[in-house]
Amino acid sequence: MERTTSRSKIVCCRDLGPTAMALLTEHGNLEVVVWTEDRRCDRGWILENIPGATGLVVSTTEIVNRELVDTAGPNLRVVSTTSIGYEHIDLEVIAARKIQVGYTPDIPTEAVADSAIMLALMATRAAGQSYSLVKNNGWPTLSRSPFALCGPQLSTTPFSPTRTIGFLGFGRIAHAVLTRLAAFGITHCIYTPRPGAAVQTARDAQLKDKHNLQEIASVDLSTLAGRSDVLFILTPGGSATHHLVNSAFLRQMKPTSVLVNNGRGSVVDSIALAQALSEGWIWGAGLDVVEEEGAPGGVTSAHPLVSEPRCVVLPHLGSVALETREEMAWLTARNVLAGVLGEELPVALDYSAIV
Amino acid sequence: MERTTSRSKIVCCRDLGPTAMALLTEHGNLEVVVWTEDRRCDRGWILENIPGATGLVVSTTEIVNRELVDTAGPNLRVVSTTSIGYEHIDLEVIAARKIQVGYTPDIPTEAVADSAIMLALMATRAAGQSYSLVKNNGWPTLSRSPFALCGPQLSTTPFSPTRTIGFLGFGRIAHAVLTRLAAFGITHCIYTPRPGAAVQTARDAQLKDKHNLQEIASVDLSTLAGRSDVLFILTPGGSATHHLVNSAFLRQMKPTSVLVNNGRGSVVDSIALAQALSEGWIWGAGLDVVEEEGAPGGVTSAHPLVSEPRCVVLPHLGSVALETREEMAWLTARNVLAGVLGEELPVALDYSAIV
Repeated sequence: MERTTSRSKIVCCRDLGPTAMALLTEHGNLEVVVWTEDRRCDRGWILENIPGATGLVVSTTEIVNRELVDTAGPNLRVVSTTSIGYEHIDLEVIAARKIQVGYTPDIPTEAVADSAIMLALMATRAAGQSYSLVKNNGWPTLSRSPFALCGPQLSTTPFSPTRTIGFLGFGRIAHAVLTRLAAFGITHCIYTPRPGAAVQTARDAQLKDKHNLQEIASVDLSTLAGRSDVLFILTPGGSATHHLVNSAFLRQMKPTSVLVNNGRGSVVDSIALAQALSEGWIWGAGLDVVEEEGAPGGVTSAHPLVSEPRCVVLPHLGSVALETREEMAWLTARNVLAGVLGEELPVALDYSAIV
Repeated sequence: MERTTSRSKIVCCRDLGPTAMALLTEHGNLEVVVWTEDRRCDRGWILENIPGATGLVVSTTEIVNRELVDTAGPNLRVVSTTSIGYEHIDLEVIAARKIQVGYTPDIPTEAVADSAIMLALMATRAAGQSYSLVKNNGWPTLSRSPFALCGPQLSTTPFSPTRTIGFLGFGRIAHAVLTRLAAFGITHCIYTPRPGAAVQTARDAQLKDKHNLQEIASVDLSTLAGRSDVLFILTPGGSATHHLVNSAFLRQMKPTSVLVNNGRGSVVDSIALAQALSEGWIWGAGLDVVEEEGAPGGVTSAHPLVSEPRCVVLPHLGSVALETREEMAWLTARNVLAGVLGEELPVALDYSAIV
């Protein structure tokens, strides 16, 4: 029997939900093996099922390395990850074997921007503290003095008519965040592009006009730290951005300022940020990512940022919104299907520029 | 000695902060008595200090009733409250004595709108559950299945291009919320005006145009319940709005919908809402007000809405943002000062229409 007439096998380390899974299971000529439990896929299960597979579906919790690829064998043509990031995939191994990689980079933009606004509001408005206070029976005895639980206000008012928002990294998601912030009356936008990104004067003039800003400017890190009322980190990880936000940076920030990280945990020195919060260098922080999240043991309740009252820590849920996750799942299924059928992937990672 | 040349007394049941207090203390010809502790003002302290006072500064926790006014005596000319609401002031007693009332109705608009957006995001994105999960050491073992902790998305996307937002009450704050939501890509706005409010066709056409909406419409309660993806309650309390959101209303809502209350707790039947959440009639709720907050004992940790996982309850902090509180304090001081000096109050409550 020729290989092309045999049923190609797809191993799904995640259940992509009924709509996306139907695309694979109803194809008719595919063997689809699915990890259906609502927990991380066991490594043993993957290694047991991967031999002979043509397609592999993963999320960020499944490590795609030499061991996995070798165990899969020569049939493996495509790895489809349901994520923006690809740190869990060893691209050198993948490139050497000419395996295609599908991913979902653009889809989560709006969901992540929503999350960034939520974290900015939660951090400025002491939402973590207040939520815990109610849960712990503190509402009936709350002092209600005029300035109790009072943090800086995100929106402008006639009495307080300017706000400066800073972005570390100024790509798609930052632009979606800026669109939302403009409706809160933000007046000044400053940013430090990710390393290597070009300044785009015409685009900036257009954004200034569109959002009725008083200023939009590319600035150095020191200016970004010193002027931002709310600073959004929306830059990729890696060595070029590692600990850009360290003690020296945080000491330049304003005591009324707030830091929001929806980018990568590695950009922020956790220990420095915990000190900045406990000593009042800055007012608060909202974090969807923390550098220790990928380390053995992860981010525990004993982590100094989790125990810091003015720090809201969420477990990397930036893209976790139903409509976005459904679209990510749909694209993930289309990517693996295209790869298995030898067609062009709807959204392929161009790793030639990375490896 | 004539009364006008004696030092008039102002009793402040709340410390309004250095800027606003200076307006009173540096006037030179006033006796200013201040409760400086960071807890609710003792009733005994007020009754002890109020005799002979010309001005009284209160927040919503101080009940201004016949006992207080009688104890104050005939000098009392003005009560200045640092709040939008005036449920704590017995207006019949005040009116009978021709005492002026100063308040701060417009100032918190932007801060409350910020809070409403925060609660809408927190309720849709399971922020309460996620925040607690990290605090309780749940991040390292989080399943990360594609739909774990997934709620409905506030913003639109090309894949999911429409959202219908409902408002119960469509005044200043609702308009400020709508401005923000437009930047999240909201397409349809429906509202039920507060009882007695007129439909304003020209204004609505203007809003539709300004925010690039596909629809804006005044609808009945049943339509409001049935169509809203996110429903914002921004209506005053009182008998006209009591329990407008009850079991019958909640049963008409969509299972993916979310309820946000920044208006008055009495508008929502707490028991019905708790049932709606636990039985999945609606997806989630974000509440800054709860009907039992004014009752003896208040809202405790045992309250069914506080213990409901998909309900975020905050302790009535809608206006608690630094810039807004400073402006409220400033106006409160100016109101009491004007009243004591026999001048027109910057912002007086016209209780002739209410009493």
